[in-house]
Amino acid sequence: MSSAESAAAKSPAGRIRVLEIRTSRRTELADITCEIEKLVGESGVRQGVCHLYVSHTTAGIIVNENDDPDVARDLEAALDRMVPKAGPYQHAEGNADSHIKSALAGTSETLFIEEGRLALGRWQGIFFCEFDGPRRRQVHVKIVPDPAA
Amino acid sequence: MSSAESAAAKSPAGRIRVLEIRTSRRTELADITCEIEKLVGESGVRQGVCHLYVSHTTAGIIVNENDDPDVARDLEAALDRMVPKAGPYQHAEGNADSHIKSALAGTSETLFIEEGRLALGRWQGIFFCEFDGPRRRQVHVKIVPDPAA
Amino acid sequence: MSSAESAAAKSPAGRIRVLEIRTSRRTELADITCEIEKLVGESGVRQGVCHLYVSHTTAGIIVNENDDPDVARDLEAALDRMVPKAGPYQHAEGNADSHIKSALAGTSETLFIEEGRLALGRWQGIFFCEFDGPRRRQVHVKIVPDPAA
Repeated sequence: MSSAESAAAKSPAGRIRVLEIRTSRRTELADITCEIEKLVGESGVRQGVCHLYVSHTTAGIIVNENDDPDVARDLEAALDRMVPKAGPYQHAEGNADSHIKSALAGTSETLFIEEGRLALGRWQGIFFCEFDGPRRRQVHVKIVPDPAA
Repeated sequence: MSSAESAAAKSPAGRIRVLEIRTSRRTELADITCEIEKLVGESGVRQGVCHLYVSHTTAGIIVNENDDPDVARDLEAALDRMVPKAGPYQHAEGNADSHIKSALAGTSETLFIEEGRLALGRWQGIFFCEFDGPRRRQVHVKIVPDPAA
Repeated sequence: MSSAESAAAKSPAGRIRVLEIRTSRRTELADITCEIEKLVGESGVRQGVCHLYVSHTTAGIIVNENDDPDVARDLEAALDRMVPKAGPYQHAEGNADSHIKSALAGTSETLFIEEGRLALGRWQGIFFCEFDGPRRRQVHVKIVPDPAA
């Protein structure tokens, strides 16, 4: 199990918040929906966007179903099948596949904020995607209110 | 054929518009370029960004060539080959592959608005990606003008 | 080797800059980190976001490790294995695989600007992804300051 710590630190630079995550498996989709929703609520922003950014090169971010946990497990297994750990690869650290999975998942996502809440679909959750765990990780969160009309 | 209804409803929350789409095949890239361009025109925004967001977990959004329809058909077939419907999967609803294709396509896209128009490349179109159709679907569109200088 | 020309032209429409790139191989991840950092510096924006947009249909943009060049080479080879040039495809121009790789890589990316600098992770670089080179290419860059508080 991963633990996304709720004590997200506010960056000195302003609107960027940093969410600390600890993963427990090599390939793991960790549900961080509640933590992101909490940051949106704390921001006080009523209308705007919430940009998520993963600053790692062997991790990513995906929005997908979090109602049935089997969906995340299937995604982990499918990515491991599509990009085998064994290679052949030139990168000598044994995690070339992790970099490739990161590229497929993507490292940024832009969500909408409506009436002070994250505007996710009914079945959608936000997953931090670990591809070279277990590790301590971060997600950077930037909440931007719509410009004044 | 899909039909993207032009009667996009303006959400009560402000700048988010909802585009209604009806797809007709299980895997289908539906060209919604004209509908998005229309919303950009109606917004009156001259300079800004147009965020697209798919609130479904078995669908996605892709920008790619819409000049030769074979490109979209090849993309559909390639994704069906890369992520077979048959599995093995744990998710019991028979659409685990649809969730995985959604993750590969991605659920958000950010486009630029220049001089009141969508700044697409010459051969680019916007495709709603259906991976578990036919269904009624939605694309959420948020048009944000640049902040005043 | 690719050459990303530093003489980025400022678009007449305002905040969009166009970065000119020349690629030299069919599949090539070209590191454009320095060029994007230069544009961010020149913009004078202290806090905001930097949207990158690729207006081509056989190219993409990826953020991944640029410390060991083998990572980019492994990514190129993995994409070429996952999406074979040979098909079968309907699109008759011989580059259907290039369009599919573009869809997997994605054509947009949103990065953060903190204290006047691009907020990349320690090992992260920005790669223009050529999938049908060699060609002259462009990356569109839109730098948006946070709205005034």
